[in-house]
Amino acid sequence: MGRWEPNASGRLREAALELYVERGYEQTTVAEIAARAGLTARTFFRHYADKREVLFAGSTALRDQLVSAADGAPESASPMEAVSVALAAAAEVVGGHREFARRRQSVIAAHAELQERELIKMASLSAALADALRRRGVTDPNARLAAEAGIAVFRVAFERWVGEPEDRGLAQVMSESFDQLKALTAD
Amino acid sequence: MGRWEPNASGRLREAALELYVERGYEQTTVAEIAARAGLTARTFFRHYADKREVLFAGSTALRDQLVSAADGAPESASPMEAVSVALAAAAEVVGGHREFARRRQSVIAAHAELQERELIKMASLSAALADALRRRGVTDPNARLAAEAGIAVFRVAFERWVGEPEDRGLAQVMSESFDQLKALTAD
Repeated sequence: MGRWEPNASGRLREAALELYVERGYEQTTVAEIAARAGLTARTFFRHYADKREVLFAGSTALRDQLVSAADGAPESASPMEAVSVALAAAAEVVGGHREFARRRQSVIAAHAELQERELIKMASLSAALADALRRRGVTDPNARLAAEAGIAVFRVAFERWVGEPEDRGLAQVMSESFDQLKALTAD
Repeated sequence: MGRWEPNASGRLREAALELYVERGYEQTTVAEIAARAGLTARTFFRHYADKREVLFAGSTALRDQLVSAADGAPESASPMEAVSVALAAAAEVVGGHREFARRRQSVIAAHAELQERELIKMASLSAALADALRRRGVTDPNARLAAEAGIAVFRVAFERWVGEPEDRGLAQVMSESFDQLKALTAD
């Protein structure tokens, strides 16, 4: 095994994104990413399965955070209140690095293959959230409907946050989008 | 070109689904599908790009129906009312063949590759519906939120309709799921 490299995964991710934006995603190799980060390809593969997964490495942490927040919501919370608690927690995980999120989004938007991977990630977040709601005693179809609606809010709010000229904070944009969905469905 | 075969595409689709259920999706070849339908592989390829696309051939008709119904909703309709009109129209297109839908769903559920294709189809329905709402003067993020929520209802209602012991009609299940989403978001 190689020696321990401080924050290797973060450096690799940063290097990857720089190269994807500069040269294009297809044109970038793992060797180049590792070189840019001052690391070896071997170190790269200790952290990421391939160059695509660099862009999706945070998925598990995001899902865990979403689920544990929904699990921990007050017993008295309605299904959508529990979803709202979960979204606020998710915003904390992914809302800290808007510049990173913005560049990541631009790479994903340019590649059908990456968009598909993102759709799969969103579907798995929705499934995990529906499971959490079922553990709270919410029955189907309500568990699925509430989870799907919540992930729709997450998605729309995230894109909005990334695209806005100023950083208002993801949690705020998320809560605003949530209220907009409520207003829409009340009409 | 071969001679005209009455309802070749329907016969091929029916034959394909029979074989996917009997032998498994991977194990089935285009030649076998064509033979089961009493047609040639050449005829198959005049109708479908490959054996996967047999399962998604209705997507374009579904999207067109959804969009033209949203476009044609009364001017006074709220965004979610327009979505509801669009979903009712979509239910007419896909709600006529529950046994077919049920078998199709079981094949898709067993294959990650087909589930991904289904996710892409749903994302494209949502994008088309959001565009239709923008043409009605709905601004973002409301257009995206309403479209995403509508497609969430479509998805949940469709799975429910396919899985229920009795056929209550997709339009009815859809309208019920729509009301459930309204009740959930009001809480």
